[in-house]
Amino acid sequence: MTRTVIESKTKTVTIGFDEPFCVIGERINPTGRKKLAAELEAGNFSTVLRDAIEQVACGAMILDVNAGVVYNSNPNPNETEPPLMAEMIRLIQGIVDVPLCIDSSVPGALESGLANCEGRPLLNSVTGEEDRLELVLPLVKKYNVPVVAISNDDTGISMDPDVRFAVAKKIVERAADFGIPAHDIVVDPLVMPVGALGDAGRQVFTLVRRLRDELGVNTTCGASNISFGLPHRHGINAAFLPMAIGAGMTSAIMNPVRQVEMEAIRAANFLMNHDANGGEWIRFARVIDAVAEGRSFAEASLETGAASGRGGRSGGRAGRARG
Amino acid sequence: MTRTVIESKTKTVTIGFDEPFCVIGERINPTGRKKLAAELEAGNFSTVLRDAIEQVACGAMILDVNAGVVYNSNPNPNETEPPLMAEMIRLIQGIVDVPLCIDSSVPGALESGLANCEGRPLLNSVTGEEDRLELVLPLVKKYNVPVVAISNDDTGISMDPDVRFAVAKKIVERAADFGIPAHDIVVDPLVMPVGALGDAGRQVFTLVRRLRDELGVNTTCGASNISFGLPHRHGINAAFLPMAIGAGMTSAIMNPVRQVEMEAIRAANFLMNHDANGGEWIRFARVIDAVAEGRSFAEASLETGAASGRGGRSGGRAGRARG
Repeated sequence: MTRTVIESKTKTVTIGFDEPFCVIGERINPTGRKKLAAELEAGNFSTVLRDAIEQVACGAMILDVNAGVVYNSNPNPNETEPPLMAEMIRLIQGIVDVPLCIDSSVPGALESGLANCEGRPLLNSVTGEEDRLELVLPLVKKYNVPVVAISNDDTGISMDPDVRFAVAKKIVERAADFGIPAHDIVVDPLVMPVGALGDAGRQVFTLVRRLRDELGVNTTCGASNISFGLPHRHGINAAFLPMAIGAGMTSAIMNPVRQVEMEAIRAANFLMNHDANGGEWIRFARVIDAVAEGRSFAEASLETGAASGRGGRSGGRAGRARG
Repeated sequence: MTRTVIESKTKTVTIGFDEPFCVIGERINPTGRKKLAAELEAGNFSTVLRDAIEQVACGAMILDVNAGVVYNSNPNPNETEPPLMAEMIRLIQGIVDVPLCIDSSVPGALESGLANCEGRPLLNSVTGEEDRLELVLPLVKKYNVPVVAISNDDTGISMDPDVRFAVAKKIVERAADFGIPAHDIVVDPLVMPVGALGDAGRQVFTLVRRLRDELGVNTTCGASNISFGLPHRHGINAAFLPMAIGAGMTSAIMNPVRQVEMEAIRAANFLMNHDANGGEWIRFARVIDAVAEGRSFAEASLETGAASGRGGRSGGRAGRARG
C-alpha cells in the first residue's frame, strides 16, 4: 500500500490510497498576485500569514509555499528567492503546524527551503526535463523528502496521455537510480482545460488509474486547470474533484478557501469510506450552516473550528532522517 | 456498445455508455406526498402537470409516472391504479414530449400504462423475485420495451454487493430466456445510505463497473438514497452523481428540480466528453446566473429555456414494434 509521509515538527500527513484526499493549499504564491508580490519585496508578511491560517482552517492539510517574486530592486531570483523562501517558511511554521510543500523553479530556493523547514516537507517539483532531474533528485535524496513529479519533459507537455504516462515512468525509474522509492514520488499527470480539450477529464481519470495500478504512486494535480476559461468554473471543479478521487487521485494543489470545492472533497471522502461514520461531514455541515447565516467560508471555518485537526495526526518526528 | 432506446411519440432518448447521463424525473409519484395523493383521488391533475413541465425544463430526459395512490374511497389498488395510470399518462404526454417511465408494483397498472403510452416507454420495474419475473417479463416481451431491473430477490436486499450482482445476472439471464436482450435491461444495483453503511458508495461504483463490463447493461439508481438521514444531503448527492458517472452509471431516477444535483450532472457530462464544446454547460451557466438574480431554479430553467431540447432528439418512431 503506497503511503507518502509528509511531516511538520509536530504533525504527520499521509497521502495514500486508503487515506482521505490530501488538500495542499496553493494560495501562498505571488505568481499572478501583484499586491502580494509587492508586500513580499517590502518585507510585509501579513497576507502570507493570514493565508496560512485561513487555508488550514478551511481544511488544507499541507501548505504550498512559493517565493517566486521578481524584485523590482533586483531582477535575479537566484539571489532574492532563496532568502525569501527561508524567511517565509520560518514565519509560516511559527504560526501553523501543518507540513509544508516547498515550491520553486529556482534550485537555490528549493535547497534554502529544505534547509529551513522542520519535519519532512514535500518538494515541488521535478519534471522529466534532464536538467531538472539532475538538479532536483540529488536534493530529494540528500534531504530524504518526497517530491512532486510533473509529467512534462524537454519536449514540453504532450497532449497524448500515453506520453505523459511514459514521462512519469521515466521519472520514477530515474528516482530509483538515486535510491528514491516510488512511494516518495507524487505524480502530477497534468490536467488540461476541458474547454480546450474535450477529453481532458477522461485523460486524467485514465492516467490516475494507470499511475496507481502500474507504477504504484500517489498523484496530485493543479485541480482548477480543468475549468480554465469556462463560466461558473467552480461547478466544473466540484464535479472534477470527486470524479478524480473516484478514479484514485490522492491529493490536489488547490485553493481550500472555497466552499464548493471543499464540500465536494469532504463528500467524496465520505463516499470513499474515508470518513468513519461521517464525522468530518457532520462537522463540515456546521460550517455550511454558518455560511448560510451570512459568514464567509473562511470566517465560518475559523469560528466553528470544524477543520481543526485536519492537518494530520500529531506526534510526527521532530526531525527527519537524512539519506 | 450498449444502447437502451426509449421513445415518446416524437422523441428518442438513448441510455448508453457514450451518451450524456440520462436523468429520469421522479417527482410524479404520490408516495409520501399526501397532498398529491388527495388531489389524484379527487381527479385534480394540476400538480402532476406542473411537475411534468418543471422537470422537463430543469433537464429531465424521461419522466417516471407512478399512480400508487391508495384511495380512501376504495382501498384496492388493483381496481383504482390501472385507470389512474392510464389517465395520468394521457394527460402528461399531452403536455410534454419526453418519453415516460411506467412505475408500479401493481401488474394491472403496468399493463394499463403500456397500453396507453405512445412510443417506447421504460417499464419500472422487475426484480429477482420469482413472481415478479413471471409477471413482468412477459409484459416486457409483449410490448417490446426496456425494463428497470432491481437487484433484490425473494430473500430481500442483500448487503453483499456480490449477491446483488448475482441477482442482476439472474434477471438478465431470465430475460434472455424470454428473448429480451441485455441492452433492454437497465439494472438498479441498489444504493444504500452511506450514513448507515460506510462502504455504500464504493459498493455502487464497483457494482456499476462490473455490471457494465461483465453483463454489458446500462444502470440506474435512486440517487438520493445515498444521503438518506444526513445533514446537507444535497452536497453528498452532488459528489455521488459525478463519481457514479465516472464509474460508468448511465442514468438515475431523481429530482431534477434541484440546481446542485443538476449542476453536478452537467459538469460530469462535460468531463466525460459527452457535452461537445461545453455547449450544454454554457447554456446551463445562464440558468445559474438567473438563480443568482433571485429566480427559483425551476423558474430560471423555464425562462432561459436552457434545458429545452434536452428531452432527446426528435424524429422518434410514432409507434413501436410489438414483439
